[in-house]
Amino acid sequence: MKPRNAFYAQSGGVTAVINASACGVIETARLHPEAIGTVYAGRNGILGALREELIDTSLESDRDIAALRHTPGSAFGSCRYKLKDIEKQKAEYERLIEVMKAHDIGYFFYNGGNDSSDTAYKVSQISEKMGYPLTCIGIPKTVDNDLPITDCCPGFGSVAKYIVASIMEASLDIQSMCESSTKIFILEVMGRHAGWIAAAAGLAQRHGEDAPQIIVFPEVPFDQARFLQRVDQVVKRDGYCAMVVSEGAQFADGRFLSDSGVTDAFGHSQLGGVAPMLANLIKQELGYKHHWAVADYLQRSARHIASLTDLEQAYAVGQAAVELALKGHNAIMPVIKREQDQPYRWSIGEARLADVANVEKKMPRDFIREDGFGITDAARRYLAPLIEGEAFPPFVNGKPDYVKLRNVLVPKKVEKSFPV
Amino acid sequence: MKPRNAFYAQSGGVTAVINASACGVIETARLHPEAIGTVYAGRNGILGALREELIDTSLESDRDIAALRHTPGSAFGSCRYKLKDIEKQKAEYERLIEVMKAHDIGYFFYNGGNDSSDTAYKVSQISEKMGYPLTCIGIPKTVDNDLPITDCCPGFGSVAKYIVASIMEASLDIQSMCESSTKIFILEVMGRHAGWIAAAAGLAQRHGEDAPQIIVFPEVPFDQARFLQRVDQVVKRDGYCAMVVSEGAQFADGRFLSDSGVTDAFGHSQLGGVAPMLANLIKQELGYKHHWAVADYLQRSARHIASLTDLEQAYAVGQAAVELALKGHNAIMPVIKREQDQPYRWSIGEARLADVANVEKKMPRDFIREDGFGITDAARRYLAPLIEGEAFPPFVNGKPDYVKLRNVLVPKKVEKSFPV
Repeated sequence: MKPRNAFYAQSGGVTAVINASACGVIETARLHPEAIGTVYAGRNGILGALREELIDTSLESDRDIAALRHTPGSAFGSCRYKLKDIEKQKAEYERLIEVMKAHDIGYFFYNGGNDSSDTAYKVSQISEKMGYPLTCIGIPKTVDNDLPITDCCPGFGSVAKYIVASIMEASLDIQSMCESSTKIFILEVMGRHAGWIAAAAGLAQRHGEDAPQIIVFPEVPFDQARFLQRVDQVVKRDGYCAMVVSEGAQFADGRFLSDSGVTDAFGHSQLGGVAPMLANLIKQELGYKHHWAVADYLQRSARHIASLTDLEQAYAVGQAAVELALKGHNAIMPVIKREQDQPYRWSIGEARLADVANVEKKMPRDFIREDGFGITDAARRYLAPLIEGEAFPPFVNGKPDYVKLRNVLVPKKVEKSFPV
Repeated sequence: MKPRNAFYAQSGGVTAVINASACGVIETARLHPEAIGTVYAGRNGILGALREELIDTSLESDRDIAALRHTPGSAFGSCRYKLKDIEKQKAEYERLIEVMKAHDIGYFFYNGGNDSSDTAYKVSQISEKMGYPLTCIGIPKTVDNDLPITDCCPGFGSVAKYIVASIMEASLDIQSMCESSTKIFILEVMGRHAGWIAAAAGLAQRHGEDAPQIIVFPEVPFDQARFLQRVDQVVKRDGYCAMVVSEGAQFADGRFLSDSGVTDAFGHSQLGGVAPMLANLIKQELGYKHHWAVADYLQRSARHIASLTDLEQAYAVGQAAVELALKGHNAIMPVIKREQDQPYRWSIGEARLADVANVEKKMPRDFIREDGFGITDAARRYLAPLIEGEAFPPFVNGKPDYVKLRNVLVPKKVEKSFPV
């Protein structure tokens, strides 16, 4: 059997370990030259396929590909681009198949979240319909941890570890000074729709009641009076209050706290910032001096404090994607299966893309304490293993030694360009 | 000679490595039982001396004291409390001497910045005047790097390393997505009066022009038109612009950018946030999608990515403080002397507290590039060695294993309390 080429692309927001999945795909493909020719990576994700901007990864050295394991961001570029509905806009899918065909691509690996599973699924359908043999495999990735079926999502564990270390450290800082200075520290974390990342901060507690003493979840409608009362209680008890708030925190009516009417000097509504909003509220109502931090991209790109568990899983799903493809599986996604909590054991399973596509996994309600300000033991059991182990990148001259690939595009073969 | 006890206190904002200085003091004192009895630590800094709240560090195990090397924050508590002028308010100084006397304290170690040097200096004067023999030694500490005479300040190198790694990582993130999504990333860093921390971000560049493409210094009056023009140029050239802005950034008339009229829903002026302010400005004027982060306390408590050079210097100044005291030096501060840039070599020197007190070291003007948006080679030569080397803390269950001391207070001996 003549080997066929493979296409690999990353999609959506990147993570500290998505390149480890790329590394898993490429290294595993290189072990099977009898079946897989060249791995082409989409420049800027799926846009690279539509525009026929394909990166020839065979021009990258083994050493540079191995360095993807410790390099955050997206080595080939990613994008926010959702393919249109297959019925309404068949042209995009046909274009994809046309490009795949032109480069003799027999394997389609798509590394992303919910939308990407949907895309990979549709590509598998259209290729079948068009009679073009293409093995389509999704590879899970998202810091939001919201994919179904898989026990967790590669990318999440590293954000969780970053948030745990960061709030532990900042809490020690504020605690040091609280007697005569700042009493409130607020760290804003990602998670527009679910409180997975905020929940992880609960792992920073040694005992049930220490810092962070308050977590504000998107799942719990924000009640200003109860919140202020709790802040005040904690400051009176501990001398300070360290808290972690989700960017998705919202009022009972569904309005985000971050949309609550902050305007700038010109009267324009100012975007975002739950942390400054709550800090100001506390200052006005309780008079406490505050500090706040917004981690934003720092959290999801913090490869320097990635979770080894997360890294290994990110690599493993990339590796498994290729192995499953070679076994002839199609329209599936390798997933993480939890075998045991403590000591943690996991393995790779598989899910049908049809079952993953567009399904969002919510955080179980029993992960949030009844008072709404912290996590339960069930949450701890689930979360704790995901931050286990360290995987520091190499450092040169005191800086993380992140790789920059050559990213050489292969010559185009399709005559027409595609407007995207 | 009968051994005498020692007093040690931390002052002002804490750092990732101030406890390493405490470790240096206590471990070195333990090596000299013939001269130093117990090291008492002030609970919440100098307040502990005024209130006679002295922590008996002899009750802490060698192992826990050693763990201070890798624990951020202030192990005994710190404070923002400046002693009043010695002429106007002699009572405070007399109280200090009274407490020292009651506990047979012959060594006064004060770990802090400019104000603290001033306090230590005054204590040395008053003790002399009152005929109470007290050896007063300052120990340098500040993330702001603004102490004179010493080549650098313990605490700064670790913040610098954190900022370098963070902006490198976030830049990879934004670069990954810029083709179809966010084009602007702004990281706000500390440094109200000088741009040392902002300047450190320049080390993240591999070449002169890559990320962070713009640094906004407090030393360079903010010119909105020039700034916007540069942002636009960079986005058009690179596809994205990652920048680091100092919280101390200001207009030509001295107003801080963070005070530029942002109000909340209630019309109250909102504190802080240069990053969101600039992000909004860019959005309004250039229309680019943005993300921003404010590192705040995360940066100065990030022991998980401390600089080994910084850590070693923090320990060394603590150790030297005790050794110099035992040699009979008084009213001095051990300082870092740079012997050579590359390879970096340093040694410990000493400065008179009188020369350190209340003097602020500014960043040399020739550290800032002529266009005002980056650093020069001179700055690179100075900064690069300070972030060298890694000193990861131990981790247990995926979390940094920071120590919590017992912090047992010794019984009070002075009859009167002191209102503070």
